Amino acid sequence: MSTVEKPASTPKYKVIGTRPIRHDGTDKVTGRAKYGADLRLTGMLSGVVLRSPHAHANIKSIDVSAAEALPGVRAIALCGDIPDAANKIAELGEGSVNLQHLRHNVLAENKVLYRGHAIAAVAADTIHIAEEACKLIKVEYELLPPVMTVLDAMKPDAPVLNADVKTNSLGEQTDKPSNIAKHFRFELGDIAKGFADAKVIVEREFHTATVHQGYIEPHNATAMWGQDGHVTVWCSTQGSFTVRQQVAELMHVPLGHVKVVPMEIGGGFGGKIAVYLEPVAAILSKKTGRPVKVLMNRADVFEGTGPTPGSYIKVKMGADANGKITAAEAYMAYEAGAFPGSPIGAGAMCVFACYDIPNGKIDGFDVCVNKPRTSAYRAPGATNAAMATETVIEEICEKLNMCPLDFRLKNAAKEGTRRIDGPVFPRVGMVESLEAIQNSEHWKTPLSGKNQGRGIASGFWFNCGLKSAATATVNGDGTVGLVEGSTDIGGSRTGLAMQFAEALGITVDQVVPTVADTDGVGYTDVTGGSRVTFATGWAVYEAALDISRQMCKRMAEEWEVPVDQVKYENGGVTGPDGKRLGFAEIAEKSVKHGEPIVGKGTVDPQCPGGAFATHCVDVEVDPETGKVHILRYTASQDVGTAIHPAYVEGQIQGGAVQGIGWGLNEEYFYDDKGTMRNSTFLDYRMPTCLDLPMIETILVEVPNPGHPYGVRGVGEVPIVPPPAALANAIYNAVGVRMQQLPMSPPRVMHELLKKNK
Amino acid sequence: MSTVEKPASTPKYKVIGTRPIRHDGTDKVTGRAKYGADLRLTGMLSGVVLRSPHAHANIKSIDVSAAEALPGVRAIALCGDIPDAANKIAELGEGSVNLQHLRHNVLAENKVLYRGHAIAAVAADTIHIAEEACKLIKVEYELLPPVMTVLDAMKPDAPVLNADVKTNSLGEQTDKPSNIAKHFRFELGDIAKGFADAKVIVEREFHTATVHQGYIEPHNATAMWGQDGHVTVWCSTQGSFTVRQQVAELMHVPLGHVKVVPMEIGGGFGGKIAVYLEPVAAILSKKTGRPVKVLMNRADVFEGTGPTPGSYIKVKMGADANGKITAAEAYMAYEAGAFPGSPIGAGAMCVFACYDIPNGKIDGFDVCVNKPRTSAYRAPGATNAAMATETVIEEICEKLNMCPLDFRLKNAAKEGTRRIDGPVFPRVGMVESLEAIQNSEHWKTPLSGKNQGRGIASGFWFNCGLKSAATATVNGDGTVGLVEGSTDIGGSRTGLAMQFAEALGITVDQVVPTVADTDGVGYTDVTGGSRVTFATGWAVYEAALDISRQMCKRMAEEWEVPVDQVKYENGGVTGPDGKRLGFAEIAEKSVKHGEPIVGKGTVDPQCPGGAFATHCVDVEVDPETGKVHILRYTASQDVGTAIHPAYVEGQIQGGAVQGIGWGLNEEYFYDDKGTMRNSTFLDYRMPTCLDLPMIETILVEVPNPGHPYGVRGVGEVPIVPPPAALANAIYNAVGVRMQQLPMSPPRVMHELLKKNK
Repeated sequence: MSTVEKPASTPKYKVIGTRPIRHDGTDKVTGRAKYGADLRLTGMLSGVVLRSPHAHANIKSIDVSAAEALPGVRAIALCGDIPDAANKIAELGEGSVNLQHLRHNVLAENKVLYRGHAIAAVAADTIHIAEEACKLIKVEYELLPPVMTVLDAMKPDAPVLNADVKTNSLGEQTDKPSNIAKHFRFELGDIAKGFADAKVIVEREFHTATVHQGYIEPHNATAMWGQDGHVTVWCSTQGSFTVRQQVAELMHVPLGHVKVVPMEIGGGFGGKIAVYLEPVAAILSKKTGRPVKVLMNRADVFEGTGPTPGSYIKVKMGADANGKITAAEAYMAYEAGAFPGSPIGAGAMCVFACYDIPNGKIDGFDVCVNKPRTSAYRAPGATNAAMATETVIEEICEKLNMCPLDFRLKNAAKEGTRRIDGPVFPRVGMVESLEAIQNSEHWKTPLSGKNQGRGIASGFWFNCGLKSAATATVNGDGTVGLVEGSTDIGGSRTGLAMQFAEALGITVDQVVPTVADTDGVGYTDVTGGSRVTFATGWAVYEAALDISRQMCKRMAEEWEVPVDQVKYENGGVTGPDGKRLGFAEIAEKSVKHGEPIVGKGTVDPQCPGGAFATHCVDVEVDPETGKVHILRYTASQDVGTAIHPAYVEGQIQGGAVQGIGWGLNEEYFYDDKGTMRNSTFLDYRMPTCLDLPMIETILVEVPNPGHPYGVRGVGEVPIVPPPAALANAIYNAVGVRMQQLPMSPPRVMHELLKKNK
Repeated sequence: MSTVEKPASTPKYKVIGTRPIRHDGTDKVTGRAKYGADLRLTGMLSGVVLRSPHAHANIKSIDVSAAEALPGVRAIALCGDIPDAANKIAELGEGSVNLQHLRHNVLAENKVLYRGHAIAAVAADTIHIAEEACKLIKVEYELLPPVMTVLDAMKPDAPVLNADVKTNSLGEQTDKPSNIAKHFRFELGDIAKGFADAKVIVEREFHTATVHQGYIEPHNATAMWGQDGHVTVWCSTQGSFTVRQQVAELMHVPLGHVKVVPMEIGGGFGGKIAVYLEPVAAILSKKTGRPVKVLMNRADVFEGTGPTPGSYIKVKMGADANGKITAAEAYMAYEAGAFPGSPIGAGAMCVFACYDIPNGKIDGFDVCVNKPRTSAYRAPGATNAAMATETVIEEICEKLNMCPLDFRLKNAAKEGTRRIDGPVFPRVGMVESLEAIQNSEHWKTPLSGKNQGRGIASGFWFNCGLKSAATATVNGDGTVGLVEGSTDIGGSRTGLAMQFAEALGITVDQVVPTVADTDGVGYTDVTGGSRVTFATGWAVYEAALDISRQMCKRMAEEWEVPVDQVKYENGGVTGPDGKRLGFAEIAEKSVKHGEPIVGKGTVDPQCPGGAFATHCVDVEVDPETGKVHILRYTASQDVGTAIHPAYVEGQIQGGAVQGIGWGLNEEYFYDDKGTMRNSTFLDYRMPTCLDLPMIETILVEVPNPGHPYGVRGVGEVPIVPPPAALANAIYNAVGVRMQQLPMSPPRVMHELLKKNK
């Protein structure tokens, strides 16, 4: 069941809000869409990466002589093939990157920092020869003790991963290397007074596990380094321009000499932004003069690419007798993995963002541990944070004997609310997302079974702006080629084509959207931050306006009237005295005489949006095994204007399911040597449809005032509430408060046994 | 030796006029550039075309049952797979196309009209199976007598090729089918009075042979027809948008559903504009659901694709005692090949275009014969015509005892001259091309050997305008991606990048030009008509101006000054008070904030240009064999502004060599059944460097007033003068007037024997 709630003020659209078949759909369901692994180039070599078997070790020496001597081996890449990048920072649209850390993550230099850390790569005539050659590379290690949790890593005597990281546990810069890469603090109001005003105060500690994005398609990269110094890279990426910049900066090549061709993508969720294989394939191609393709297997993906961080979070909140939150405080330490860069910043901005809190303090720590360098994962950092806040709120409600939905409504962030980290919200839909649950048939249907319980939780995530570009060319038969730079993970080609079609009053079938390579379209930032439908949607809207202006000018000239007497409306140009020509007719004319009509749109919009979601889940807990069975799940979300409601529902369902997996089952399971013991999809348990009910969705449409069509980012926030909602439901079912993720059967059983002791 | 003559008024450029290495050079010389034959797609099938062994026959039946039964055969295409297109005309940028004729040329329906006419095509697992299957297709023919020359074909009782062609020998439309597809007449002044005023009148008849463009890369096409009805075609073409339109119109698919990906091209010269294999591959892919690649071999190219027409031309010219031409008359009949459409129109416009002639009449006939449908070939129609005019002029000069160079100077077309077909020339360089020869060391060096002679001849060709589009995106490091739609045959990527760089004051190395597919760039007409450097050059110039305007606006905002106080000059933006920022600095800023900078240019320019060339050749004729040996060759040409002089020289040298081949050796040699007997490069003799001296070039730069950089088309006119120049040289060497092409040893011998009898 799916519901779309439109405020009466929603403008009427012709294309927006419909559910056309996606442009790339047929190719994908018929197996014809080309992914990176499908690429075959003449003379292509296979590359294989040698990875560290140890979680933490110094590299004493690497001897590649035996590997080089193996017949069929064409080249071997080592870190030294990438120019030294000490103290170099690359500014990417989505943030800055320490190039030396990136370089050392791509190929380890003197130290391996996690099991799976790439050390060397071999290009050979076949993948089998390359694999054999990897076995012949002799690496001499000096083993070091691994440190696997943030609390251990923050201890003064902890083994230290990076010599250039030097923050102490107070957040001060020192001369002594440590594992604390960053500390920051947000403060608002008077925290002491806030807690003094509280009738109820709850403080709890939480631990969340390291989890992976779990995209179905492993990373892959093929590179061809020409003798003219130009490099072409084909890969599965969320940001072709990001890959271009990282490869160019790492390899000291001008940006314009790197062409990145984005292939179709089998999922990314934030994990396909940083480069792993791309520079390696480029080095191997440069050395051999031939194209080189490198693929990961599933273990490589788990052990060698960025999961999202496990974390330690302590949250303290107070509320007065009326149920108004008076103060909130959080201490949050997120795993950076091997190199600095966890999403702690975003996590800290989100932890209390759903509520209007007058007094607050948030401490954030970015902490290195001997795990793969973490990456973004759908609303990165926010899910961990919501697990803490949303369960603490439930305890407060219990103590105040208040309905948790009423409590949230009373405290909900709204237009004008200032977040503890500073920004003030414009028109947002937190209240509406709660009301939608409150009004839902789900909420109104009581639970009656034994060991059953209901939980709700809310979540917030941002709406990124950043740069996007698009061009569109009008064909003589009224079809339009739309070229844009946002790699399409979730159907964005169609969501963009719809906004473009809406702006011109044409049908979405008339639009043929193409994701161009980096030479073929203007700079476009990464597909992430829930920005594509928002920002690239705005770019295609501008391109459409550009076309309508050109059509007006052309018709004004033809009708010999001033251009201000013609108007583009309803899919055509209207002039004085009832003159009128439709889009396709003008398109046909444009082929016969005059310049081709090409529209252009470039944007760098501010991002006043922001998405709020409230989820409601019913569970039944098996008291004999601790297994949590989901009976019913409803996700409500302010989605701004739903361009393609079916894809919005799909995003919500997908995000909720990932949050459920994170909440109930998923974790990187390490042994005491720092070796992941479950790096397959058999042992790393992601939910499938067998584990889930239908995820019901309620689309609440509060148009974003900062976008021409009211678009908000919708893709990320649905992952935020599930773990907390499940924890609350489990408490209501069997009376145990879960403070560690995942809430797997053994953990639930452990709490049940403790409670019943 | 090469000379560049710049008038003193030529503006100084920084990039234009230099000779940088072409952007696609390395990939081409290292064998890395991808041509159509290099394409390998997953599941790809091989297609082979069955061709007619007869020059003229009715098809009684086609039985494909045995072929279909052969294991490995996946589909067979016949004409019936292309929707009937009776009475349908497609308007292409470069002219209109009778779709039914195109359809019947792609696959014959009820009749074969030339040996090599495609009848059916087989897609199979391997090319060998497809070839075997072709042999199993049983075609029952009813043989018809072939007609192989225009004079035979115009006879009232000639066998008729096309039932829908009905013009009689007077040029009137009748009810009786004939082989005359078109007749037209151009007239100027009073032809009778003109000849009455003449002191000398010469009238001669000429026959020229059918010749092929002889590009090194055979035609190829790969198509993938998706289940969503979208077709992608990879091919070697001069016009990706032309292929798109022809495939779309033939197959009844919207334009936007056909994507044409232009691969690199191994030569075209006009012969790669019409589709041959593209619709066939598309049908086979549609039937099989798999990609299908079809390649031609050399015999297929000779026998199945368009050569340029053989012709019959009668020219009559008169001049007064002062050597002023008083009248000129031409009767020109060009082979259309199997279907109407020879370049007779252009030939008739060019035949007298080099001269200021007050009274003239030109009759043109387009005549079907049992040869492949003719195509454009470098200045199509003009070379045949110049052979006639330029040798008749020599006879007149002889009779008047005038220097042929002085005679041409006296009569040369110049600004204000009206052509017999109507148009008036703007500033053109016919006089300058003659003066350059007059002033050349070659002209001043007398010949002294036995059986040696010198000849000159001039030629004219147009400068097409038509539509072009380009977009350009500025990268953060000051490099620029330039996307354009002109398939690059002769280095146009660099010629365009140079104009773009000039307009922005940057270096050509900063520009990375890309030829996009039809979804990736605005509509751009065919690479032909000497238009790319002119029109697409103008489009990239507009795109550069668009970028400079955006940079000015951006800097005005940053400096907080009105935009009219900033100016783009010398590769950067200058503002008041000495404020100044270079292109790369602004590019770097643009990545940090604000919209990406994307420039756009679209043009449909008028074409006031026009190119004139005068060639001078010294030959020695072997009186015992009739072989003509070229001693020295100088080609002078008004090239407008030479963007990249080395490529202009290359175009002149290439064109002159092709004209020499046409003049001395090349011809389709047919037996009495209409079978070409020399369809290999062994027997179809094209000149190689072993047959030629260095072709010396003189670039005369008379800037085209109709282009921002003064560009004229340069690629085609150099093929026009050679046969006539050679004929004149042969006369001056051994005293025989050649009136038939090629002037091969047997023909020259024949004339020598006649003369000496």
